[in-house]
Amino acid sequence: MSELNHEFLAELILRALKEDLGDAGDLTSLGTIPEAQTGTAHIVSKEAGVIAGIEVAAEVFSALDPSLMILAKKVDGDAVAKGDVILIISGSTRSLLSAERVALNFLRHMSGIATATANLVELVKETKTSIVCTRKTTPGLRGLEKYAVRCGGGRNHRFGLYDAVLIKDNHIAACGSVTKALQSAKHRAGHLVKIEVEVSSIEMLQEALAEGADVIMLDNMTPAQVKEAVAIVAGRALTEASGGITHETVRAYAEAGVDLISVGWITHSAPNLDLSLDYV
Amino acid sequence: MSELNHEFLAELILRALKEDLGDAGDLTSLGTIPEAQTGTAHIVSKEAGVIAGIEVAAEVFSALDPSLMILAKKVDGDAVAKGDVILIISGSTRSLLSAERVALNFLRHMSGIATATANLVELVKETKTSIVCTRKTTPGLRGLEKYAVRCGGGRNHRFGLYDAVLIKDNHIAACGSVTKALQSAKHRAGHLVKIEVEVSSIEMLQEALAEGADVIMLDNMTPAQVKEAVAIVAGRALTEASGGITHETVRAYAEAGVDLISVGWITHSAPNLDLSLDYV
Amino acid sequence: MSELNHEFLAELILRALKEDLGDAGDLTSLGTIPEAQTGTAHIVSKEAGVIAGIEVAAEVFSALDPSLMILAKKVDGDAVAKGDVILIISGSTRSLLSAERVALNFLRHMSGIATATANLVELVKETKTSIVCTRKTTPGLRGLEKYAVRCGGGRNHRFGLYDAVLIKDNHIAACGSVTKALQSAKHRAGHLVKIEVEVSSIEMLQEALAEGADVIMLDNMTPAQVKEAVAIVAGRALTEASGGITHETVRAYAEAGVDLISVGWITHSAPNLDLSLDYV
Amino acid sequence: MSELNHEFLAELILRALKEDLGDAGDLTSLGTIPEAQTGTAHIVSKEAGVIAGIEVAAEVFSALDPSLMILAKKVDGDAVAKGDVILIISGSTRSLLSAERVALNFLRHMSGIATATANLVELVKETKTSIVCTRKTTPGLRGLEKYAVRCGGGRNHRFGLYDAVLIKDNHIAACGSVTKALQSAKHRAGHLVKIEVEVSSIEMLQEALAEGADVIMLDNMTPAQVKEAVAIVAGRALTEASGGITHETVRAYAEAGVDLISVGWITHSAPNLDLSLDYV
Amino acid sequence: MSELNHEFLAELILRALKEDLGDAGDLTSLGTIPEAQTGTAHIVSKEAGVIAGIEVAAEVFSALDPSLMILAKKVDGDAVAKGDVILIISGSTRSLLSAERVALNFLRHMSGIATATANLVELVKETKTSIVCTRKTTPGLRGLEKYAVRCGGGRNHRFGLYDAVLIKDNHIAACGSVTKALQSAKHRAGHLVKIEVEVSSIEMLQEALAEGADVIMLDNMTPAQVKEAVAIVAGRALTEASGGITHETVRAYAEAGVDLISVGWITHSAPNLDLSLDYV
Amino acid sequence: MSELNHEFLAELILRALKEDLGDAGDLTSLGTIPEAQTGTAHIVSKEAGVIAGIEVAAEVFSALDPSLMILAKKVDGDAVAKGDVILIISGSTRSLLSAERVALNFLRHMSGIATATANLVELVKETKTSIVCTRKTTPGLRGLEKYAVRCGGGRNHRFGLYDAVLIKDNHIAACGSVTKALQSAKHRAGHLVKIEVEVSSIEMLQEALAEGADVIMLDNMTPAQVKEAVAIVAGRALTEASGGITHETVRAYAEAGVDLISVGWITHSAPNLDLSLDYV
Repeated sequence: MSELNHEFLAELILRALKEDLGDAGDLTSLGTIPEAQTGTAHIVSKEAGVIAGIEVAAEVFSALDPSLMILAKKVDGDAVAKGDVILIISGSTRSLLSAERVALNFLRHMSGIATATANLVELVKETKTSIVCTRKTTPGLRGLEKYAVRCGGGRNHRFGLYDAVLIKDNHIAACGSVTKALQSAKHRAGHLVKIEVEVSSIEMLQEALAEGADVIMLDNMTPAQVKEAVAIVAGRALTEASGGITHETVRAYAEAGVDLISVGWITHSAPNLDLSLDYV
Repeated sequence: MSELNHEFLAELILRALKEDLGDAGDLTSLGTIPEAQTGTAHIVSKEAGVIAGIEVAAEVFSALDPSLMILAKKVDGDAVAKGDVILIISGSTRSLLSAERVALNFLRHMSGIATATANLVELVKETKTSIVCTRKTTPGLRGLEKYAVRCGGGRNHRFGLYDAVLIKDNHIAACGSVTKALQSAKHRAGHLVKIEVEVSSIEMLQEALAEGADVIMLDNMTPAQVKEAVAIVAGRALTEASGGITHETVRAYAEAGVDLISVGWITHSAPNLDLSLDYV
Repeated sequence: MSELNHEFLAELILRALKEDLGDAGDLTSLGTIPEAQTGTAHIVSKEAGVIAGIEVAAEVFSALDPSLMILAKKVDGDAVAKGDVILIISGSTRSLLSAERVALNFLRHMSGIATATANLVELVKETKTSIVCTRKTTPGLRGLEKYAVRCGGGRNHRFGLYDAVLIKDNHIAACGSVTKALQSAKHRAGHLVKIEVEVSSIEMLQEALAEGADVIMLDNMTPAQVKEAVAIVAGRALTEASGGITHETVRAYAEAGVDLISVGWITHSAPNLDLSLDYV
Repeated sequence: MSELNHEFLAELILRALKEDLGDAGDLTSLGTIPEAQTGTAHIVSKEAGVIAGIEVAAEVFSALDPSLMILAKKVDGDAVAKGDVILIISGSTRSLLSAERVALNFLRHMSGIATATANLVELVKETKTSIVCTRKTTPGLRGLEKYAVRCGGGRNHRFGLYDAVLIKDNHIAACGSVTKALQSAKHRAGHLVKIEVEVSSIEMLQEALAEGADVIMLDNMTPAQVKEAVAIVAGRALTEASGGITHETVRAYAEAGVDLISVGWITHSAPNLDLSLDYV
Repeated sequence: MSELNHEFLAELILRALKEDLGDAGDLTSLGTIPEAQTGTAHIVSKEAGVIAGIEVAAEVFSALDPSLMILAKKVDGDAVAKGDVILIISGSTRSLLSAERVALNFLRHMSGIATATANLVELVKETKTSIVCTRKTTPGLRGLEKYAVRCGGGRNHRFGLYDAVLIKDNHIAACGSVTKALQSAKHRAGHLVKIEVEVSSIEMLQEALAEGADVIMLDNMTPAQVKEAVAIVAGRALTEASGGITHETVRAYAEAGVDLISVGWITHSAPNLDLSLDYV
Repeated sequence: MSELNHEFLAELILRALKEDLGDAGDLTSLGTIPEAQTGTAHIVSKEAGVIAGIEVAAEVFSALDPSLMILAKKVDGDAVAKGDVILIISGSTRSLLSAERVALNFLRHMSGIATATANLVELVKETKTSIVCTRKTTPGLRGLEKYAVRCGGGRNHRFGLYDAVLIKDNHIAACGSVTKALQSAKHRAGHLVKIEVEVSSIEMLQEALAEGADVIMLDNMTPAQVKEAVAIVAGRALTEASGGITHETVRAYAEAGVDLISVGWITHSAPNLDLSLDYV
């Protein structure tokens, strides 16, 4: 059993194939390629990056045509250089070309996320800080995108609203104070649910620590403010910096001693990694 | 009836809500916000761009809680400036906050595509050239992404493998020549199916014209090459330039007289437009 | 990869099997046939016709019981005579009998359409005219029915509202004129979308030609009127005759020189081809 | 609550609408009809027959556009003459025309079945015989087709393999005799399951009666043979004639005193009733 | 083909696996067990009972990981003693442990029902009475639960509202009398539908017999009353006792001569049979 | 927004209604009750207990017939006495009776769980101990069952394998030691994931505490052993007692000072609460 549950992928892949093939099928391949013709194609990287989604791409080809033979030359998380071959697929030429775009759409998107993550992870290396993702993901693809973040060396924040509590300004406003919000949330949460609180001042931070928050989110603070907050926390909770952190600033936040830096754009705005299928 | 079929959106939205809420629901809102509390939130633009997906975002809120009142201050395709209010949502505070992220994930993604498209459209203005998208889209979201391209002033290429023929190098290789591929494709295609051919030389172009291709794709040519090809075509078919065209080069291609410029990254790599929900 | 995407069929076939087997299953076979009994059955034609749906029928048996062995003696598009064996299925007797009706319901329906189409195609042979289907299909089965039309030697009209424009009287009325409707439709349609216009007079025909319609539908005209219209068109567009064309009149329309004759009843009212399963 | 469960129809209708509209939608209506334009359409009968499916057609329009106003002028089971108005639909012209074909495809198909049934029912009037349908139905539409049979005055045979036992020749062969098959089936069947046996000789009939079959199917017998069998049964079981019974022969079978005449072609081969939508 | 249709189970099992694994998967196994580790596990009974659901449990393991090897040591309907091994599963340790709970949840639930049923069947042995279940089942699991009842030696009442008529007090009240309700129901029901009537007095019983009810339900009567009713029926219909019948009273009802005793709690309130997975 | 997401319930309820109504519908109500008849029904408790699932039952009625009027006399979590009215439903008699069983199947099942939970909660009152559920739930109904536990005053353990880590004996065996398993799990788990470890000795307990486990599960210990373990933990982690705890022993465990007592049978073996629908 790998990290991705193949059984669950099937539905996602089938939906994507239907979206591309429709009721009429691949008019071009059916119209130009003899049914019996076979061939081999390589999925090749056109630029350096980190790969994620090899199993997904392979399953797209298999879903369309179980007789295709697929050989993976890389595993998810591998760094690739321009020109590296990632997958070799052999069999019906029609099938190869009909599945090409859907397979690449998954693989390029996931590899783009892994690459963006890996670039940030590299920038904070030799600090204790982890790069983590957010819930700013593409609707319907969250599981794959969170997996791609892990392939890039990042770690995952909560998967949804259901697996952890994250109290933000609006929740605090609704409750009246950090203290009340934490007490109320703890009262309802199961004993295996962690609670994180977003704070924007030292007073709020003190309240959060007093009520035993598991994680403190330091939102939109400067590295200097983060450093001060981390000192106050003094290990009593995990600390997370978030809000507009870029390639330029990420190292400074890491050096401020924060445990986690969360970055939305690695999932919502990472450009595709440039990969293509070469028919050989 | 608007351009987006609401009935079909329902399934997509429900899947996205389930992905975020899971079986346990929004632990934070349930734990900190009284059931009876109500309020109002604004979705506000944090940067300039073009909006797409207002109906989608509105339906996310309605799907979670049909009692929410929603007022759209913009329509899809509107340009927005930083600070502009796009949607106003009133009702149960829990519902507002539980639906926030899914609604924004759709709206930010679609608006990012509309904005990237509009930027290219602006660069080719006062030429006869249209900016068109490709099939390099996010699996499962193609219909929404193609719609967002239209909101940005672009036009749509084929939606899938099923609604037009696009003969590429691999298909030509399989058939033996442009001439044979076109004849074979025409023989099978229904009478309402257009046929486009990708060409990489003047010889191929001549063959394609001789066989009556509807559209000629000029792939990875320089603007000068495109200009020459357009002159040869002389209106006998539509012409499309594609392959690595950027903000820097798009104007030159348009001035070369091509009818269409296709750009994959407006759907696969456009960054989100920065929008957020402010609870007021 | 064949013309029918097996992956997509699975859902349709499963739904049909559930419809017939329900929660309780095949009470008769479970109640009268020992689990271990095996046998062989033939699907045999009881009348002459053209076969379509062999893969679908085979997949019904396989879906119910993957251990059944299936041997196809014909391929889709084959003409069969009374008594011809089409499929041989061996294995669990219970499985054979439980899948029989669903398999036959698909195969008889599709073969009925192929046969009706082939009969018309035969009547117009040695003319340049193609027989094409319409969107008057059974809800949920359009892809299979359009495929059956191709098996019978017919060609496909558009698959849905989404893959071509067909401007009818109501659309023209809404726009004000053929000219305006064509201009408006072209303005919105992607560059790979063909446009057909239904005309009922020479004036409308002239307008349609002037605006460059790709296909002209000549609705409810006599063969003589069609001949006149075809002469006016003079190859500038494809021509399609439609409206109440029967076995008796189809040849006259073809001889009038029209490119296409569309017939709704080959999909919506073709009787089943009489096929049955003989247990041997 | 009517005979058709609206909640269950929704899924069927949505699938049919997606099949016709696809991701791109109704290119023609979107391209030629202004969003704000409204109008009224009539669904009118072009020939005499019996109507079934009015609620289904109405729900197609409502599913596409809940703001359409729909007025039914007939109820299912009504006889209609040429020119009769069946449904009046008012609202967005785009919506009217986009939903037209799917609504008609359901209504014409179901009304065709109701009409074919009613014609047979008329032929056996004033006898005690009921016309019943079979499991030879269109995959996925059985519930609607069985309902249409009832609208035409027919009655329903079993709905599937799950709700009654029908022992045919193959089952008898597998068990060794009618007696054994009946004993075996009774042993397993629940106490609310009726058992019917197909017999082809007087000996088999005697066995079936001796074992207490609830219904006897007299397959492919002449009216005279049926009359003899009915006399032997003498009310100890219901009797059903089946096998190739036509308009010409149905009355003779009824007069032979049989309780039920089952006819497959009223569901699998009834031509559509000719109905059309007139935009007014 | 076994009694359970494997194709239909797939959907139910996939839903259950998704419910347990979610998007993030089995965090514990992924975090503590090396991907390559393999092992063997036994599903063992912790108490005596009757097993049902072995195929279901086996398919859960296979659905999660098709490479697991599964060996069944028992078949459904077998009595087991404490310590008996039921299934042996070998392969990836991660897969074994990730599928464990879902497999056990099905198998324990179904075996609990089989065991409860078998206990009642034992109590009425050597009478002619059958123990039957009701429609008081767990939503979504009715087919499995009715199958489990059969594994325990019980028989099935109707599966749903669709496969038989059961006229209760409310229906009688709505019609005015037993006589009218029976006449009305018979008029509408297909000829393969049996009709049962619930009666609470001798008068109602007489009416039901006069109208030819197939089955008479004697609701909430004492064994003495049942005996009297059975004598009146005298074989003209089947008789069923129902209403609060327990282990203590079931024998008395059987000895009163009733054909069927229906018991809701064998499906809705049977405790799980205690089974566990031992990793060896 | 209530605790149960209505949008998600729709699918579950629709599946249950289809399971009961099938393609043919409620043969009894359709056959005996005039379409226009209306009435009122009460859902009444036949025994004392705690109610859960009122919204679910109400939505079953509404899903079948949106015109039914529904008045809830209790809210989830209310204690009810024998004879208490829980819901009043008015409208079409057919609809009332057709939806009755599905609505009751949900409500009785959920109320049974709430009642079993409440009984345990009562037994530990005035201690600091919470009663929590497990993952031993009915496949497909986990969200509803965990909600029912909360209605009974219990709290929820993890919802699935995805939202927390629970290291059991098999995981420890695979890793080599409690220490290694904890280190390995922590390394992979996101920062918002809590980690629980099952221990069976004081040595394992010490290891777990040393590695900072969030929760310690004390499996199959006596109350005395639990007391000793709780003293050792001394507030450094939460403690959970599990394994065969009954009504008789639960108080002793609570008095041993444990934070949590987990009980599987409140979800997997709680008998239904006896509720019925009275037509008035």
